[in-house]
Amino acid sequence: MSEGKTEKTSHTLTKDEGFTNGGNHVPSNVTDQMTEKFDLATVYVSDAKYNRNIFFDTSPQAVKLYLLYNHWFMQTLVYVFIIINLALALFEDPAVVPLPIWATSTIETICLSAFTVRIIHYAKVIPKDKFWKDPKNICIIIIVTLSFIDMVIYGALKATGHYGIRWSRVLRPLLLVNVTEGRQLRRAFRSIRNALPQISYVFFLFMFSVLVFSLMALKLFGKRGLLTINGSPYFTDYMDIVFDLYVLVTTANSPDVMMPAYNSSVYFTIFFILYIVINTYTFMSFFLAVVYNNYKKYLKEEVRQLVKAKRIKMCRAFSLLQENRGEGGEPVVTQANWNHLVKLVKPKISTAHRELLWSVLDDQNKGHIGKFAFVQLADLLSIQVITVKSQAHPIQICFPSLYNSLPSRFIRQMVHHRVFVYAYDLIILVNAVFIGLDEENPVVSNAEWGFLALYMLEILLKLYATEPRAFFARHQFWNWFDTIIVVSALFGTIINSALKHSGGYTSRQVLDIVFILRVLRLIRVVDSIKRFRAIINTLIKIGPTILTFGQLILVVYYIFAMVGMELFKGKIQFFEPNSTSPDREYCGNPLLKSTSFAKLNYCKNNFNDVISSFILLLELTVVNQWHVLTSGFTAVTHVSARLFFVIFHIVVVIIIINIFVAFILEAFLVEYTVDKSELQTSLEKKIEELELNVQQDGVDTGLVDAMETNDSDLGSSEDGKRKPSLMFKIASRRSRTVDGLLQRMFETDLRPEDFNEEELDNTNFSNPVFDSV
Amino acid sequence: MSEGKTEKTSHTLTKDEGFTNGGNHVPSNVTDQMTEKFDLATVYVSDAKYNRNIFFDTSPQAVKLYLLYNHWFMQTLVYVFIIINLALALFEDPAVVPLPIWATSTIETICLSAFTVRIIHYAKVIPKDKFWKDPKNICIIIIVTLSFIDMVIYGALKATGHYGIRWSRVLRPLLLVNVTEGRQLRRAFRSIRNALPQISYVFFLFMFSVLVFSLMALKLFGKRGLLTINGSPYFTDYMDIVFDLYVLVTTANSPDVMMPAYNSSVYFTIFFILYIVINTYTFMSFFLAVVYNNYKKYLKEEVRQLVKAKRIKMCRAFSLLQENRGEGGEPVVTQANWNHLVKLVKPKISTAHRELLWSVLDDQNKGHIGKFAFVQLADLLSIQVITVKSQAHPIQICFPSLYNSLPSRFIRQMVHHRVFVYAYDLIILVNAVFIGLDEENPVVSNAEWGFLALYMLEILLKLYATEPRAFFARHQFWNWFDTIIVVSALFGTIINSALKHSGGYTSRQVLDIVFILRVLRLIRVVDSIKRFRAIINTLIKIGPTILTFGQLILVVYYIFAMVGMELFKGKIQFFEPNSTSPDREYCGNPLLKSTSFAKLNYCKNNFNDVISSFILLLELTVVNQWHVLTSGFTAVTHVSARLFFVIFHIVVVIIIINIFVAFILEAFLVEYTVDKSELQTSLEKKIEELELNVQQDGVDTGLVDAMETNDSDLGSSEDGKRKPSLMFKIASRRSRTVDGLLQRMFETDLRPEDFNEEELDNTNFSNPVFDSV
Repeated sequence: MSEGKTEKTSHTLTKDEGFTNGGNHVPSNVTDQMTEKFDLATVYVSDAKYNRNIFFDTSPQAVKLYLLYNHWFMQTLVYVFIIINLALALFEDPAVVPLPIWATSTIETICLSAFTVRIIHYAKVIPKDKFWKDPKNICIIIIVTLSFIDMVIYGALKATGHYGIRWSRVLRPLLLVNVTEGRQLRRAFRSIRNALPQISYVFFLFMFSVLVFSLMALKLFGKRGLLTINGSPYFTDYMDIVFDLYVLVTTANSPDVMMPAYNSSVYFTIFFILYIVINTYTFMSFFLAVVYNNYKKYLKEEVRQLVKAKRIKMCRAFSLLQENRGEGGEPVVTQANWNHLVKLVKPKISTAHRELLWSVLDDQNKGHIGKFAFVQLADLLSIQVITVKSQAHPIQICFPSLYNSLPSRFIRQMVHHRVFVYAYDLIILVNAVFIGLDEENPVVSNAEWGFLALYMLEILLKLYATEPRAFFARHQFWNWFDTIIVVSALFGTIINSALKHSGGYTSRQVLDIVFILRVLRLIRVVDSIKRFRAIINTLIKIGPTILTFGQLILVVYYIFAMVGMELFKGKIQFFEPNSTSPDREYCGNPLLKSTSFAKLNYCKNNFNDVISSFILLLELTVVNQWHVLTSGFTAVTHVSARLFFVIFHIVVVIIIINIFVAFILEAFLVEYTVDKSELQTSLEKKIEELELNVQQDGVDTGLVDAMETNDSDLGSSEDGKRKPSLMFKIASRRSRTVDGLLQRMFETDLRPEDFNEEELDNTNFSNPVFDSV
Repeated sequence: MSEGKTEKTSHTLTKDEGFTNGGNHVPSNVTDQMTEKFDLATVYVSDAKYNRNIFFDTSPQAVKLYLLYNHWFMQTLVYVFIIINLALALFEDPAVVPLPIWATSTIETICLSAFTVRIIHYAKVIPKDKFWKDPKNICIIIIVTLSFIDMVIYGALKATGHYGIRWSRVLRPLLLVNVTEGRQLRRAFRSIRNALPQISYVFFLFMFSVLVFSLMALKLFGKRGLLTINGSPYFTDYMDIVFDLYVLVTTANSPDVMMPAYNSSVYFTIFFILYIVINTYTFMSFFLAVVYNNYKKYLKEEVRQLVKAKRIKMCRAFSLLQENRGEGGEPVVTQANWNHLVKLVKPKISTAHRELLWSVLDDQNKGHIGKFAFVQLADLLSIQVITVKSQAHPIQICFPSLYNSLPSRFIRQMVHHRVFVYAYDLIILVNAVFIGLDEENPVVSNAEWGFLALYMLEILLKLYATEPRAFFARHQFWNWFDTIIVVSALFGTIINSALKHSGGYTSRQVLDIVFILRVLRLIRVVDSIKRFRAIINTLIKIGPTILTFGQLILVVYYIFAMVGMELFKGKIQFFEPNSTSPDREYCGNPLLKSTSFAKLNYCKNNFNDVISSFILLLELTVVNQWHVLTSGFTAVTHVSARLFFVIFHIVVVIIIINIFVAFILEAFLVEYTVDKSELQTSLEKKIEELELNVQQDGVDTGLVDAMETNDSDLGSSEDGKRKPSLMFKIASRRSRTVDGLLQRMFETDLRPEDFNEEELDNTNFSNPVFDSV
């Protein structure tokens, strides 16, 4: 059966090629045809590399348009317009910085037009039928259309002096989800959607439990005449009890909600203990378990699909470039064609790097590679290989005798010694103490100059001992960090002291920045402790995942902020601390008189503009004092406003935060279970075999990176075999993301059966996947 | 190499046998010798079944002592003494119910003597050198000795009128960990200990982050002259800032800690948002990830060891009973010997059940089984098989014509119909509404009688339609639940109404119980919704794990309660709500005047007795208002008292609660990944093959269980082939625990290589494992 399938697909492929060639087989078009083939193969390979799953038209014109569509500038532009569109909320009523309606409308029209142009571009790239089948295109069209309609209606209503609501604003963040580039975000939403049925069952059972406990509370406490701390009757109204016990699940009103019953009898605490154990702990853990389980299941399935799709694309690229060696021989791709392709895919690749990749693939030096080797290209290209040219230090070139003199060599060895690192760690600690002291003390403020000098000295010494281009290589995070922080602090301190001396006036802003820079300097200590560095690396690795999560939370917050602003804007006012208005005590709304909300001075937690809304939503996410914040808004509107806050809690705390925890858990587990990837090792092995690798530093002090050590080794190895002037190093493990690790995990799985261009079984996955033509 | 190992172990075995036989080979002792062999084999099998890993002496006397040691009565007795010993805290100063010192001392002496006897018994069972190598024995001896010493010192001090501290009380809960039966608890502690190094690295990095943020906060906010809501200066003292920001990690002071800065400038929120994202969310998730990762890793390893140990014990039992069939043939165990062994291991097993097990093992009907089959016995015995004798209903026997009449059959069919279930679900919902109404309304209180009658009717109808012994079978949880709740509610209501009518006096306690019973009745609805039942089943399955966790938390709480009581007893007083004492406002301690602690009326949250301490510790575990509770105790003692609460937070919230979440996560994942166990299916297959299975109900309404359906089917199948009168059913999947599932998971792993009696590689596991003699 599997063979039959293969035959079918290879047949399809032949058709595909025929299609690409167009109808004309005139010899003069052969080079054109080759160019087109290479263009198409390039697109396939780079799609495979970036995991793009767009089903594009393979006609040469469409391919050109497709390349333009995927150009980084176009993609950036789309995000710029999305950000501008989202940022409009800052200027629209209720605004942080009010702008007239015509201004915001004009900007919005421009943004919407840009999205329209983009979607038209996309429609030109892919076949019509595929375009209309894709829900994300439909979504964009609907969002843009509705936004235009809403804008017109709102403009008309405002012009005629009526009250209008900009309801289409809640749709804006959805653009972020539906643009072609929002793959990761869509995946996160899909994993939420897939988990929803299970979450909802657990949620209903949980609500049932809350309702039953509330009924019990009503029966147990309702008739006892107990009073809360405010003197109001305790647990007498069923709906209030349900709300109070729901709040207890968030832990926000613990132990206050229990105290009246506890004060009356110690036995009543049994009720609350059972409630907390069952609902607050067991059910909440259960939610996490359900979300995590689903997340894991679907993540694996989606990554598996992704890897399959990648294979198929690489196979297509292969069939475009393949040549038949002899009769009956396996089709192969020659080195010349391969070189041409790689240059097209990655124009900036160095010849050395390209040759290294070829030697990894063609390990028997045959001058051509088969399908199996060719397919690995996409993955090989995504491994960051740093070409290190072991250049001589500029000073060495200018003043060789000085640079190679005994004191100079001593300095260079000293800088690379671990004692140097420890000494500076000690300096940082002493500095931390000085920062903690009062900076108005002249000793302390003068000491600051001393520390700055020491830090500058450190950087200069390191620059002396290390080749500057190697020191400021792209991946040398801590070197960059150090230099930027120290130099900025130096400038800041100079400006600050100049301001002080000139007129006795100190700019608070400059001082704040200087303080922050000083404190940030301390972070460097982390990098010299090996265990800490390992944790930081894991954190950095899950960075991209957290970025996706950031977008997710932005979408949800934005929608809730828009709704919240329409519901609650202007209801609660904030008065400056030095204001003498009597309204200040109750946030400008008499309904808040003597409520905890006003007493705790929460007036600035309101929905009066988009920034306040976001901060308030963050506070609601943290959950503490959730009931006080909620009670403030119900007091100024209606008790049903609780619904808004409960829904927010369910969506954000029960679902989104658990997704976040699931993200981190999975990232951590994947990190610890898949710590060696086969592919990377094969490249590493080849580099080692060719004796082109940069030796890893045994001490691994972090500050003194591998390359520097190698540099300092140069002196001693001069008598022995001279090292080649070109070396490679696989970029630090930091750059490997969870997604990449997972992909490689599945690549091992898929290897045996997946070398025939299989159809993707697109049965239960709504993922827009790559189909055969 | 592996073969060499096998040889060695089999050699060891021969020696073992020689040892068991003693020196005397006199023929008259053959039967004695056989009895001893069987006794020893029985011990091995039941040790394998219950996963006991005790290295006992194999001499007949020691085996007898060992059997006595493992007797359920002895084990229960140990737990009773432990509970009494722990409960002493209720009666010792500061006491809930004060008892004189001589009384508590006497009880404690009795308990300690019991533990001493138990440990001496244990010493007699296992070889001397093994006894002294086991840390848990040493622990028990030290604890008992120290307790005696402390008791004497305390008695002497009290008698001479000095102040004494009962410091040995913190050691008491450790007995729970160190008794032989506390295997699960020890495993939990081991998994914590194993996770500790990793947790501590993350914790130090986390504390570093908190310290750096605090320094930044000091520099940013310290000089701005901001005030908190109480009018005290905001963020001016470094140590206070560290504490405040630590509290923010628990979320307990959000958003209050941020408000002064937020009110001053919206830009300051960036600081807090970063802090919350990094420390509250990322680091806290990281702790969970570290704990979960370690828990998972070690759990798997420990279960693997457990399964191996089990195998070895079964192999030993096999070698005791084996006979050689012909020359060169594999050693086997005959059916007669096997039967004898099974009868000894499980005296209550029915002949039918035993024969079923034999037919599963000896599937080719050879009359003897090899090692491979024999080893499965322990697992087969732990699968609960219910022997169902399809007995006729008592009424059918007494009045066959009546029972088989048309109306009677109609009633029986009606009861099993799903409409019957739905009707009662509806009744329960209506009842829920009535419970919510005011019970002093005569309509409502009379309706209660109606509902009670309906529920009684339901039970009687079901008893009519189902054979009573099947209805009240041990695994029929919901039938038991229903009957107990309804009957108790009936009695309660009758007593209540009798009391009311007799003197107009209503006992509040009786009423409370009646109310609780009424509300509990509603829970039954859960079982008729399939999705809910699935969730409940998962919850029930993780029940044993939660029980272990309960012990864990008891140990930790007890230790903190003992220390807390010594530190804070009597410092905060609770006054009854109707007390008129002026001290009531500040909990009897002037130091608490106008603190939030006193204002929020938290006086009853104190360490004045063991029960209050436990409740307070629970509140601290929930974390909300953690800083208010902490501030109360620091106000009455010293600021360093914070240390006690911070340590409690680290131990309980950061470690223990995360272990709990890890428990639940793993239970959930195992539940969803290993849903079919090979072994169980082989038994099920056999039952099906023999046509002895009870058919599963297709509708699966839960209330109407499989057996009942089968019973009602009897009528229709009378014309066809008569079903055998004996049937089997594997007990519901509920009884399978996570541990069992995991064990079976690894059994599949271990199958191929583990049929030779291998040594356990006890290299990096401190688990007291079973070694070869």
